[in-house]
Amino acid sequence: MARAVKNILFVMYDQLRWDYLSCAGHPHLHTPNFDRVAAMGVRFDRAYVQSTICGSSRMSYYTGRYAQSHGAEWNGFPLRVGEKTLGDHLRAVGMDCYLIGKTHMRADEEGMQRLGVDPDSIIGVRASECGFDPWVRDDGMVPEGPDGSYDGRVSPYNEWLKEKGYPGPNPWSHYANSGIKDGQIAPAWILENADLQANIREEDSETPWLTDRALEFMDQQPGPWCAHLSYIKPHWPYIAPAPYHDMFGANQVPAPTRDARELDNDHPVYSRFARSPIGKSFQDDEARAKVIQAYMGLIKQCDDQLGRVLDRLEQTGAIEHTMVVLTSDHGDYLGDHWMGEKMFMHEQSVRVPMIVYDPREAADATRGTVSEALVEAIDLAPTFVEAAGGAPEFHWLEGRSLAPLLHGAAPSSWRDAVISEYNYAATPLAGVLGLSDEDARIFMVFDGRWKLIHFEGGIRPMLFDLQSDPDEFEDLGARADHAAEIERMYGHLNAWGRRQSQQVTVSKEKLDGMRGSSARRGILLGVARAADADPELFSKYVGPAQADYTKE
Amino acid sequence: MARAVKNILFVMYDQLRWDYLSCAGHPHLHTPNFDRVAAMGVRFDRAYVQSTICGSSRMSYYTGRYAQSHGAEWNGFPLRVGEKTLGDHLRAVGMDCYLIGKTHMRADEEGMQRLGVDPDSIIGVRASECGFDPWVRDDGMVPEGPDGSYDGRVSPYNEWLKEKGYPGPNPWSHYANSGIKDGQIAPAWILENADLQANIREEDSETPWLTDRALEFMDQQPGPWCAHLSYIKPHWPYIAPAPYHDMFGANQVPAPTRDARELDNDHPVYSRFARSPIGKSFQDDEARAKVIQAYMGLIKQCDDQLGRVLDRLEQTGAIEHTMVVLTSDHGDYLGDHWMGEKMFMHEQSVRVPMIVYDPREAADATRGTVSEALVEAIDLAPTFVEAAGGAPEFHWLEGRSLAPLLHGAAPSSWRDAVISEYNYAATPLAGVLGLSDEDARIFMVFDGRWKLIHFEGGIRPMLFDLQSDPDEFEDLGARADHAAEIERMYGHLNAWGRRQSQQVTVSKEKLDGMRGSSARRGILLGVARAADADPELFSKYVGPAQADYTKE
Repeated sequence: MARAVKNILFVMYDQLRWDYLSCAGHPHLHTPNFDRVAAMGVRFDRAYVQSTICGSSRMSYYTGRYAQSHGAEWNGFPLRVGEKTLGDHLRAVGMDCYLIGKTHMRADEEGMQRLGVDPDSIIGVRASECGFDPWVRDDGMVPEGPDGSYDGRVSPYNEWLKEKGYPGPNPWSHYANSGIKDGQIAPAWILENADLQANIREEDSETPWLTDRALEFMDQQPGPWCAHLSYIKPHWPYIAPAPYHDMFGANQVPAPTRDARELDNDHPVYSRFARSPIGKSFQDDEARAKVIQAYMGLIKQCDDQLGRVLDRLEQTGAIEHTMVVLTSDHGDYLGDHWMGEKMFMHEQSVRVPMIVYDPREAADATRGTVSEALVEAIDLAPTFVEAAGGAPEFHWLEGRSLAPLLHGAAPSSWRDAVISEYNYAATPLAGVLGLSDEDARIFMVFDGRWKLIHFEGGIRPMLFDLQSDPDEFEDLGARADHAAEIERMYGHLNAWGRRQSQQVTVSKEKLDGMRGSSARRGILLGVARAADADPELFSKYVGPAQADYTKE
Repeated sequence: MARAVKNILFVMYDQLRWDYLSCAGHPHLHTPNFDRVAAMGVRFDRAYVQSTICGSSRMSYYTGRYAQSHGAEWNGFPLRVGEKTLGDHLRAVGMDCYLIGKTHMRADEEGMQRLGVDPDSIIGVRASECGFDPWVRDDGMVPEGPDGSYDGRVSPYNEWLKEKGYPGPNPWSHYANSGIKDGQIAPAWILENADLQANIREEDSETPWLTDRALEFMDQQPGPWCAHLSYIKPHWPYIAPAPYHDMFGANQVPAPTRDARELDNDHPVYSRFARSPIGKSFQDDEARAKVIQAYMGLIKQCDDQLGRVLDRLEQTGAIEHTMVVLTSDHGDYLGDHWMGEKMFMHEQSVRVPMIVYDPREAADATRGTVSEALVEAIDLAPTFVEAAGGAPEFHWLEGRSLAPLLHGAAPSSWRDAVISEYNYAATPLAGVLGLSDEDARIFMVFDGRWKLIHFEGGIRPMLFDLQSDPDEFEDLGARADHAAEIERMYGHLNAWGRRQSQQVTVSKEKLDGMRGSSARRGILLGVARAADADPELFSKYVGPAQADYTKE
């Protein structure tokens, strides 16, 4: 019997760089379970996210649409009610869609109220949870400051820690994400604490906890389902439980990818990013090394937990009908380009791991291969719809199904460039630069060689040639001798800006059937003379006058 | 007591050209009631619609958003549920919003079902009626052909005609929109029938019927309200009841604005429009003259009916607190540029009348004046919200309030260019040209002098210089000596394409308050060393370690 996709395990790690996996060439970090999936499927080596910040990137994954199209351009910006989600698309073709972990979704409460959607109804819960049925939702982010809690929601993980006996009101903060130094809580928010052992039992830390929830789900739910297993790690606060906290030494930390030419670059936005407090904190080489040791430890833990999931899939035989996808919502600069965090457009930030195992025979030809096709995060939604046996609704979905690439059938055409966006209107940097909200926006266009970074606000673009300068050190954006490349890349961006992203109520198929149909429903234009009238089209309009009101 | 805007009478005529009014300089058509409003208010002489087809243009008026933003790019394309409407904006500031006549709205039934919106609930009715409370809805379009009726809805006007004794199943067609020739029904769809007398009593024809509904509304509804009084006429089928059918003679029909150079233009889209059946039917000069005589008669009837409304407003004193707005959803070529209908981007199609009477004292300074500001249809929605005493929500609304222009206070900046769009994917012409749906789209950018018309599908742009060539005869789009102007105009279009149209869940005010706020809610980035930590921000993260799990 032919193998079909019954279930889809859509695994996301938060802030996982594309190159911190052994299958992607990391020199010191061995990730046998990521590699195991890569050997079973296709590793897409040039996969790009639609935004370099969690919430916005995720809304693109979960809607299959660009950030400019779905409009939730920053963390905490609600996804407008009615925006169609992966869950909506999959349920329509008979596949449930569950959440296990993080989405960074915020509900459009005003919109739901306006449309009378009860937040406690099934429709309301799905609208609030970005189209997922929440098996467990935990965004893995429970910080607190003088103005209160960042995320008002109750964290199931934090509550679970309390039940396990971890003391205090916020064990997520004081145990899972802190160490101990001199008898005091040493929060991992401070980078120099990243080499401490997290003050938590390893099996109680975030990644195993969520893995347990996923195993419970898989044991209980036969499917067909798509399960979004969405880990917070290796996202900051950077700190790992034993034994992962000291598994890697300073000699295994890669040297930063940075160059003095970059600090000489007077580009107003880049130069301020590189000189921001975040940038400077990652220029502290000792602190950076501690962070990366923790980051590698956290990834190693993710890999071990992935092994548990894969083992279960193999033990139950579910691997025969389960598509497995491993990816991330964006990368992490980790001191490269003199920066920390993500939120800009170098490869370290915008490029992500994307590994897809497709159980179908059609994919046998590509197992263990690496694809160089330009892939976007928004490609997963149509890929999943296709795998579920449906026809992707391309009047909503702006990506492309990866099925042809997975099945070794080169598509007749593929995209020429990928687009990513970052809106920094809600950051202090917008104020430093004196920019309006509209002007605090960045667009990236990358065609596989040339990367153009456009800035609103009349700020000049940046340009990199990744063929001659794969490390992206030399900004050619001010160079007159590259004007032609800049113009060509702008051509991609401009065409993209004119795309139809909101014609979401008329399918392509329906539209194709409309051409000229109004004439057969009585809209008769272009007939000057009765002699030219088509008798069939005019049949309803002719006949003897039954009453004459022209004489009254 | 200061005069305030209590009610807004938002009058739309369908397919009314900007220049078929005596206040706009028409040489033969005297429209004293349009002129009366112009004398009381401001006539915006350079007002442009966002699309040159009814449904799409209207959705822009009713949402305050560009066609690319609301996505309903053609007639019969449903407006997506959740798209915020003029009615939503006005009701939020205490003003009801009623419909009397046409909208061309089609409900997003699939979206409503997905969100559980009952079509018969108040929310559902408003979602189905483009945000209006329907006092009476009649799209004025009840054609029928071999495949059935164009508009499946019951027409209240058609039903009213039947009650009045007009015989047959479709008196809209056989009486209101037909004449009699040789004892046979002579449908006005055939242009050479346009000079016939419509087979209906004048007082039973469409424009007086809808005016009666409006007078009933005004008598019964004290307000505050915005009432959209939306006439189908002078839209085709072109035929007028007595005495309007022969009020104008062939010698009062303006000569067509057309030039042989235009037929020599090999532009693939324009040349096919000019050679389409519609274009050819309006190149029949005798048929054209008959059409224009009827068109002028229909406008004259509209003017007389407008007089009834204005008289009632004056008799009741309501004119002291009623804003009156007269406009149209697009123009009509009427044989100019060798074309009929609308659906292209010459002034005859994309430019509309826009006359605004504002009762407030602040507007006294501008009464009877003409504004040359570049105005867009989407400006009315924020104008109405401001007049109703509210603050326009510019995260939804893409236009600008006209209040500064109405009140004689020159705004510090105004727009540099207007944008209009036309999507012809659903027309036979897209097939003739072999274009995909995405490529059958036109964008216009006009800066007050230069008009660029961009075509998707790799088709070259058209360019007109309205200063040296006000009639738009000479297409400069292929001329190398105008490359700089073309590039500059594309700059406007490209910036527009990158605009934020979908960030509709976060107000500008809320966004302004977000800059840097996450640090005070515990997101602490950029701290390498404990010594650099701000004690207040870190207050929740420090203290003695209560339990030590690192030893287990």
